[in-house]
Amino acid sequence: MKKSLLALAVLSTTSAAFADEGMWMPQQLPQVAKQLKAAGLKLDPASLTQLTSFPMNAIVSLGGCSASFVSPQGLVVTNHHCVYNSIAVNSTKERDLLANGFVAHTLAEELPAAPGSRVFVTKEVLNVTDKIITADVAKLQGKARVDAIEKNQKALVAECEKDEGHRCTVSSFYGGLEFYQIKQLEIRDVRLVHAPADGVGKFGGDTDNWMWPRHTGDYGFYRAYVSKDGKAADYHKDNVPYESKSFLKLAKEGVKEGDFVMVLGYPGRTNRHRLPSEVSNTFGFEYPAFIQNSNETLAIIDRETKGDRDAALKVAGQVANINNYYKNRKGMLNSYEGSDMLERKSKEHDALKAWVNSDAKRKAAFGADLEAVEKLIAQRDSENKRDFHLDRSTPTLLNAARIMYRLANENQKPNAERKAGYQERDAKRIKQSIDGVNKTYVAKVNKAIVLNNLKHYAAQPAAEHNAVFDSVLGIKAGASEAELSAALDKLYAGSQLEDAKVRAEWLGKSVADFKASNDSFIKAAVALYDDAMKREAEAEELGGKIQQAYSSYMKAKIAFMNSKGQAVYPDANGTLRVTFGKVAGRAEGADGTTGWSAFTTLAGVKAKATGEGEFKAPQAQLDAINGKQYGKYYDAKLKSVPVNFLATLDITGGNSGSAALNSKAELVGLAFDGTLDSIISDWDFNKAKTRDIQVDLRYMLWNMKYIDKAHNLMKEMGAE
Amino acid sequence: MKKSLLALAVLSTTSAAFADEGMWMPQQLPQVAKQLKAAGLKLDPASLTQLTSFPMNAIVSLGGCSASFVSPQGLVVTNHHCVYNSIAVNSTKERDLLANGFVAHTLAEELPAAPGSRVFVTKEVLNVTDKIITADVAKLQGKARVDAIEKNQKALVAECEKDEGHRCTVSSFYGGLEFYQIKQLEIRDVRLVHAPADGVGKFGGDTDNWMWPRHTGDYGFYRAYVSKDGKAADYHKDNVPYESKSFLKLAKEGVKEGDFVMVLGYPGRTNRHRLPSEVSNTFGFEYPAFIQNSNETLAIIDRETKGDRDAALKVAGQVANINNYYKNRKGMLNSYEGSDMLERKSKEHDALKAWVNSDAKRKAAFGADLEAVEKLIAQRDSENKRDFHLDRSTPTLLNAARIMYRLANENQKPNAERKAGYQERDAKRIKQSIDGVNKTYVAKVNKAIVLNNLKHYAAQPAAEHNAVFDSVLGIKAGASEAELSAALDKLYAGSQLEDAKVRAEWLGKSVADFKASNDSFIKAAVALYDDAMKREAEAEELGGKIQQAYSSYMKAKIAFMNSKGQAVYPDANGTLRVTFGKVAGRAEGADGTTGWSAFTTLAGVKAKATGEGEFKAPQAQLDAINGKQYGKYYDAKLKSVPVNFLATLDITGGNSGSAALNSKAELVGLAFDGTLDSIISDWDFNKAKTRDIQVDLRYMLWNMKYIDKAHNLMKEMGAE
Repeated sequence: MKKSLLALAVLSTTSAAFADEGMWMPQQLPQVAKQLKAAGLKLDPASLTQLTSFPMNAIVSLGGCSASFVSPQGLVVTNHHCVYNSIAVNSTKERDLLANGFVAHTLAEELPAAPGSRVFVTKEVLNVTDKIITADVAKLQGKARVDAIEKNQKALVAECEKDEGHRCTVSSFYGGLEFYQIKQLEIRDVRLVHAPADGVGKFGGDTDNWMWPRHTGDYGFYRAYVSKDGKAADYHKDNVPYESKSFLKLAKEGVKEGDFVMVLGYPGRTNRHRLPSEVSNTFGFEYPAFIQNSNETLAIIDRETKGDRDAALKVAGQVANINNYYKNRKGMLNSYEGSDMLERKSKEHDALKAWVNSDAKRKAAFGADLEAVEKLIAQRDSENKRDFHLDRSTPTLLNAARIMYRLANENQKPNAERKAGYQERDAKRIKQSIDGVNKTYVAKVNKAIVLNNLKHYAAQPAAEHNAVFDSVLGIKAGASEAELSAALDKLYAGSQLEDAKVRAEWLGKSVADFKASNDSFIKAAVALYDDAMKREAEAEELGGKIQQAYSSYMKAKIAFMNSKGQAVYPDANGTLRVTFGKVAGRAEGADGTTGWSAFTTLAGVKAKATGEGEFKAPQAQLDAINGKQYGKYYDAKLKSVPVNFLATLDITGGNSGSAALNSKAELVGLAFDGTLDSIISDWDFNKAKTRDIQVDLRYMLWNMKYIDKAHNLMKEMGAE
Repeated sequence: MKKSLLALAVLSTTSAAFADEGMWMPQQLPQVAKQLKAAGLKLDPASLTQLTSFPMNAIVSLGGCSASFVSPQGLVVTNHHCVYNSIAVNSTKERDLLANGFVAHTLAEELPAAPGSRVFVTKEVLNVTDKIITADVAKLQGKARVDAIEKNQKALVAECEKDEGHRCTVSSFYGGLEFYQIKQLEIRDVRLVHAPADGVGKFGGDTDNWMWPRHTGDYGFYRAYVSKDGKAADYHKDNVPYESKSFLKLAKEGVKEGDFVMVLGYPGRTNRHRLPSEVSNTFGFEYPAFIQNSNETLAIIDRETKGDRDAALKVAGQVANINNYYKNRKGMLNSYEGSDMLERKSKEHDALKAWVNSDAKRKAAFGADLEAVEKLIAQRDSENKRDFHLDRSTPTLLNAARIMYRLANENQKPNAERKAGYQERDAKRIKQSIDGVNKTYVAKVNKAIVLNNLKHYAAQPAAEHNAVFDSVLGIKAGASEAELSAALDKLYAGSQLEDAKVRAEWLGKSVADFKASNDSFIKAAVALYDDAMKREAEAEELGGKIQQAYSSYMKAKIAFMNSKGQAVYPDANGTLRVTFGKVAGRAEGADGTTGWSAFTTLAGVKAKATGEGEFKAPQAQLDAINGKQYGKYYDAKLKSVPVNFLATLDITGGNSGSAALNSKAELVGLAFDGTLDSIISDWDFNKAKTRDIQVDLRYMLWNMKYIDKAHNLMKEMGAE
């Protein structure tokens, strides 16, 4: 599945789930100490609650992926697909690192990661609910409530970020019932250290993605750099490796079936207790529409990059991302179609409403909110549906122009009053993202994708159109493809923004400068601005109402579950979590098989290696397999070197690259995927079926030793 | 694997194997009557020895595939891939039967099968060893021996074929120790009746070929037609369906795991007791060279037919055939590399030699032949290796010209003296094959493939070249690609043979006519003739020596095995055989799985159906699956309709389309494939691993009822 949580944040509110499935906040672990001990953990569970000591302080976020320190010199291990863009941006026709892999044998050989790459080291987590939903805020509604919450969040963040080089966030838990402030060191100088060839790191490609049996060497290495005085800093040749307070040690012995294993990382989002109407909208409209749109986009990219390896390299990350979500959504829909999920969720929701309405006090407290939340959500879903293609019809450079113009506007206010995302703290991230556009931008591809969405948008009735957008582009409902294409041609031709230097200049300019510009994208950004602000305000008015009603609904739901003796833990929201379980196969396999064993081996790599397309194992690897060059990574029971293994762990997108640890908290592998019929667990956890997939540490080391000769890194990690 | 034995007859001599694995000649079945009863057969085993009564007389050959009568009106069921070329030749851009499938709802709608299609109904099998290896022949050596054997064979065949409309063959068993004369009614008017869409009949394509779990609807229907008076006849609108003496009845109940099942068909060739040097040459040179050459040829076809659907349709059968053997050979090599086969075979052969040499009488009888056979085989293998690319460098139309010119030469002799394959009895087959060239011929593809082989040939040292061939083409060792291409251009441009009418005229012409021609391919055929005859004579001289030594070696081997109490049965040689066993999954699955269950179901079709490429299930089928429209084909234990099933049967190429029967000899499915790690059984039988794959009759009927609405055929078979 490639669990990286990238651009596609489909749902805008958080939700909660119930204890059982187990993405535990570290501070909750004492609640399950008995289970942890029984499962085989040899450490004191309390030691896992300390974020600033081993092993928790070795676990880092890459922003969308998880990772860990594995040496005292800032060496970070994560998944191949999490460093994929960094390999891609460093690849050229002449030096194709994607195809051939990459090993830096010295620090000097390490390459700058993709623009915007970060390593976030969690330093502190505080419950700040009382500071966000103060007594005054609790009385507010609509936009006023949203604004007040944002103001309080920003104030806390600003205070927290006075400690330079740190990034602070205030995250919502339990649907806005609780808020936690998380402080992270934001390391900005990240370098690519090692990645195996695509034929290992992406072996099986989209065919095997979300599948078992699996044989993917999904690992790669970064190194975190800081200034000489140990502070977070931009890339500089004089920067030095970050010395983390602790780091994970590699297990000397591999895991075997039945062994305790836990995964520590940053799961992005689960939706296990959504309203029935949200389930219905997601599976009835949103996912099918996404699938249709992805099909079209992939065909367009394929057509536009045929025979153009440079262009193909630039959009490789985008293609991988679409394919990943495409298969995810299809898998979700498949599981959903065969399930009684909506029916069951509706019944559960009816039971909640009956419970609320059966008691006058509860009815007074929650009754109105329960009714309101369904209507509000329906309104939001309907607007999202209307704007599905409109939202995908903004050229990349117009989007850049809009961000820069918004920044110019926000910069006119005092920092504390600027919109979240446009404050001083955001300036560097915005700059790197604007600067880096060209690394992945291919104009003809971008235009063709936008045109396709515009065609769908133009086919919608006039009442569903955004009049300002139409007038800026010079189009209207019912416009022909030729008209739309001509409008785009004009827009793309009239701008200098494809030049990175030109964009860099615009980043510093004033609102007046923007208004005076003749650049087509800048002019369009200015012309769209007022309407966009109006729409944002309307969305916030609705958002504030939803926040209030939704958190009330969650409060009722938690009370209801507690009344039945069931504890509740928050749904995943991108914060550090622990899941534990065991290495285990599964009784139910694919149609025509009797089940899954817990491990795959080199024998399967050889069997799958056709030498073509997605199954192009490097010849050196096949030679080593044929020559039975197993070394100390041989597993006598498996009669080969283990490659991937299954475990009963509860992970989701964002967990990509998460460390899998044994009972002594030693590294045994990296989580990187789930299986297609497990991923519905994001909505509806299925204990019998859910398995996640790890790349086994032994496979990583075997490749590093025999194929890529990454002896320097093995020594650094104490593996040689 | 697509067990059709098509053009690629790799090995030119037959061999023998030992009783156990079980491709039984029908007349041998009383020897295993106890086992048959114990396994669950409810018929008298003796009834299976009668070739002219039920069920044996319902089992027919298509020449390369097996099939069976399933109605009193000549309706024949076989595999989709066995009728594939007949679908292809009837497909056009406008009416793409491959993509959409085909059902004839009346006799009038049935379409002529591909040129040369045949249904062979076995009428009689006689042991004629004494008439082939007479006392006089036993004394001969070399070419004289080959000529004498061929003369005796032809005389028997000629006598047998006086019964008009029949085709007789004399087949060698036990490496030339025994000969059987087989008389078959040769039905020449064969029509395509029904084939499901490619998305069913070829579901999984080359990806799933030789694989389990499998979900291929590999079935199709022909009808055999004869003249009004019941004789074999060419296609004619007044012909009538052939009324077979008996036909298979469909089982009312499907099979389940553990049930008795037997397969009746025409396995092509097994090589379980080859000489160690033959094993070494096959796996060390022949298969790897084939794989390399196939890779190149497939890439060329892909390149030359890109965007040209007509051309792609014409070569679809060729592509399927190459892919089939490609995967087969790769699978063989994979199994071979991990095995001790050569070592074991060498030891067995050493044991045989030791046993022969340990006794003066045996040494005198076999010692010299045992030594000679290895040298002779080595010589043959070396010549084959030398000519590997030369043999692939003949343009299709030059090959047609050579066949026609050979025919003109042979026609100058009395019929009985003509070379086997060029007698009067062969005239129709040759004519249909020459007439039908255009159905699958695309000049640019053919030229590109020949050029590629020619490049390899040109790169060989001059000593390995055929001087006559070189002079006729105007090339030489070391010629550049441009020179070779120019030589081919000249050859292709100077001929009218692409015109079917022109070819038809040449078929009747005299040697003098050929010699006077200016057509480039005809001229080349004439110029190559004398040298080809010389080479043929040399090959026959060697072949005669091999036949004598090889049959002596086999005699020694059989005596040796008998001395150890082991019975021997002949290796497969394209004659009717019976294999029996049970429906069974397997403990060993693919890497990462715990094993295989015996059945796949519709659930797997749905799971695999991506809607793209090789996994494009028809929408109507997916709708029926989603709507749970199972009808009476539902299996309560499987909770779905069964699609394919595994059995412990011993089959090989040529068994494609073979009827799978239950204990009452009722049809329950069709054998169509084995699994990649089983196919090494052709050389070295592995009891634990070997499973064959059947398409379940219930899946065929479910598709015919709900997807293709082939109600007329279901009624004809008594299924509705």
